[in-house]
Amino acid sequence: MTIPGPIDPPARLLMGPGPISAYPSVLRAMSAPLVGQYDPFMTAAMAETQELYRQVWATHNDATLLVDGTSRAGIEAAIVSLVRPGDRVLVPVFGRFGHLLAEIAERALAEVHTIETDWGQVFPPSVIEEAIVRVKPTLLALVQGDTSTTMNQPLDEIGEICARHGVLFYTDATASLAGNAFEADAWGVDAATAGLQKCLGGPSGSSPITLSEKAVGVIRSRAKVEAGIREAGDTDAEDFVRSNYFDLGMILDYWGPRRLNHHTEATSMLYAARECARVLLTEGREAVIARHELAGRAMLAGAQGLGMTVFGDVAHKMSNVLAVEIPDGVPGDAARQALLTDFGIEIGTSFGPLHGRVWRIGTMGYNARKDAVLTTLVALEAVLRRFGVAVPAGGGVDAASDIYSEAV
Amino acid sequence: MTIPGPIDPPARLLMGPGPISAYPSVLRAMSAPLVGQYDPFMTAAMAETQELYRQVWATHNDATLLVDGTSRAGIEAAIVSLVRPGDRVLVPVFGRFGHLLAEIAERALAEVHTIETDWGQVFPPSVIEEAIVRVKPTLLALVQGDTSTTMNQPLDEIGEICARHGVLFYTDATASLAGNAFEADAWGVDAATAGLQKCLGGPSGSSPITLSEKAVGVIRSRAKVEAGIREAGDTDAEDFVRSNYFDLGMILDYWGPRRLNHHTEATSMLYAARECARVLLTEGREAVIARHELAGRAMLAGAQGLGMTVFGDVAHKMSNVLAVEIPDGVPGDAARQALLTDFGIEIGTSFGPLHGRVWRIGTMGYNARKDAVLTTLVALEAVLRRFGVAVPAGGGVDAASDIYSEAV
Repeated sequence: MTIPGPIDPPARLLMGPGPISAYPSVLRAMSAPLVGQYDPFMTAAMAETQELYRQVWATHNDATLLVDGTSRAGIEAAIVSLVRPGDRVLVPVFGRFGHLLAEIAERALAEVHTIETDWGQVFPPSVIEEAIVRVKPTLLALVQGDTSTTMNQPLDEIGEICARHGVLFYTDATASLAGNAFEADAWGVDAATAGLQKCLGGPSGSSPITLSEKAVGVIRSRAKVEAGIREAGDTDAEDFVRSNYFDLGMILDYWGPRRLNHHTEATSMLYAARECARVLLTEGREAVIARHELAGRAMLAGAQGLGMTVFGDVAHKMSNVLAVEIPDGVPGDAARQALLTDFGIEIGTSFGPLHGRVWRIGTMGYNARKDAVLTTLVALEAVLRRFGVAVPAGGGVDAASDIYSEAV
Repeated sequence: MTIPGPIDPPARLLMGPGPISAYPSVLRAMSAPLVGQYDPFMTAAMAETQELYRQVWATHNDATLLVDGTSRAGIEAAIVSLVRPGDRVLVPVFGRFGHLLAEIAERALAEVHTIETDWGQVFPPSVIEEAIVRVKPTLLALVQGDTSTTMNQPLDEIGEICARHGVLFYTDATASLAGNAFEADAWGVDAATAGLQKCLGGPSGSSPITLSEKAVGVIRSRAKVEAGIREAGDTDAEDFVRSNYFDLGMILDYWGPRRLNHHTEATSMLYAARECARVLLTEGREAVIARHELAGRAMLAGAQGLGMTVFGDVAHKMSNVLAVEIPDGVPGDAARQALLTDFGIEIGTSFGPLHGRVWRIGTMGYNARKDAVLTTLVALEAVLRRFGVAVPAGGGVDAASDIYSEAV
């Protein structure tokens, strides 16, 4: 094997469902030198990151930290730490990631109950409450934004319902956080997970998570201490968490004042996660959500201006991603390929029943910008025309520009 | 909360047991722009990284890839994917990380059997074989280099023993890989895991792993397919892997030609892992191991030249880390603190029975360098003197310099 040169990625404007182009300052943060894991600078940076993410999540939860892995790692940590084998878990499924939560709960040997709605729709709270009454779960696991369908499940009434029925409320906000409203405390969320690679504008590989006191109580009751660092008086719960890496009790002790050794914190990803939150809060949480809302509205208008049909319930779509039906006669993957090759712009396909039927176009994080929206629309227009679609000249960019003009 | 500024770590020479200062080019690689997870550039970079790590591990294993998480994530992925609940697992324990392997196997509900030796010693192969005959495990889980004691367990005869008794042979080489010999194929290793933050000279957060065909066979027999991406004909094994994130069968399908969606690859950590291997192979695998051997020998001579007593069986220590007894009357943590504060140099303490008794000094990756060794020794001399130890002036740096002079 010839040894290859240093990594040198091509220019890409990532306008798919994620990962998206990171904020330049997040990329820079990752090239900062490493420090030791118990260096006072490191532990201070960890504490600072926790405090930044409390603001991102809108919570006072002490237990706010990062799981070292992709967003799926955060999901599995939440589920295996909160769910005992045999526990009933209710998962309302409105897209691919609902299936994923169910799958992970099955792996944890939960008794999983799902309810489903058509792809492109969300659940009214009353339907979720009826299922809770029927199933009597210990945990409700509910995706907020499912990128596979672009839907944004309303959560503001769910925490109250869960509390009334004594159910823990867990939500995954990977696709939605920082691009749509999220209020961990106000909505009564017991556990929430995310990733950096969507609206937070960083790379995949670190999963922010926040846990209520009630959730921490469940996790603490399932403690198991490593033999190698066991001290007098430490005992194991019989119902210990069936994972060491994802045992949030141990991860809490590593992040907390005891600083008990667990994994070795992924320093560069910590720097990235810290910078994602710092960029967000410097611009302002509400301002960033508003920027996503505007970019999303402009992309929607632009796609419609190109004569495309939007998939799903537009009233409930996430701001940061749009699904459009692939026009008749257009080979979806070849057209996406042309967009990538000729313009350096990536948009996404979808999963399962929607594969080959819709494209997904994202406007997230750094790329929730006017120039990114308009550039994508003019390139898309050119590609559609080349594939024989009778697109109105300038129809996309004009409609999107109008949205931006009205917003000034 | 006042929003803090960009991350700005202090100057640190990391001479502890890891993490250590990364190669500058690895830090640079992480600031490269992101691409989509199915971008042809990304899939090519993944394939390239696999091929680079085949050389790092000295293997032809097709199943050579990264687990997205710290080295502990790789360990748990190997164990939960290879071990069924109730399977017997044999763990020879010669330090803290042996206990960790046992702990992770317990969490996976294996029937765990351990044998122990004194900290500072390794196992003769015959002792391991006797235990295999007695326990009849399905898996032997054995750390190669245990940083807690600095010992390097000889592995060259273990694969043959395991094969003869029909036992899978798994080893964790996090602390040892790239600083000491490792021959996955020649030694008959079925599964091996590592991390970047030791001799590979990168940040924690990505875990290289390699699996023999036999190991892959076991993993494939335990497949479970996500409902969200299930296709006609897919069926679940009854004895499916009790984790989604760590199911190596799914991770293999993501890295392999099917490119089945699982997690979203941690792009920046992939860039880092690729660069770690690239730096290693550009210098030459044997040359890098020799550089670690020389730096380790110089640090050992230097510590002895300062009158310090080495802990453990020197004939079996890893090249890249040294444990020395803290001189009588010296407050170990205060002296380490002085080294950090006044010289910007980090060395380590240890765990369990060795905490407060030994310091651990590493010479790994980028820091397996003459200037790093000599600088550490002069600073250590100054600190020891300040804490009242009658150190021979220049005794450390002279002894280490002699080693380097002889080596020219």
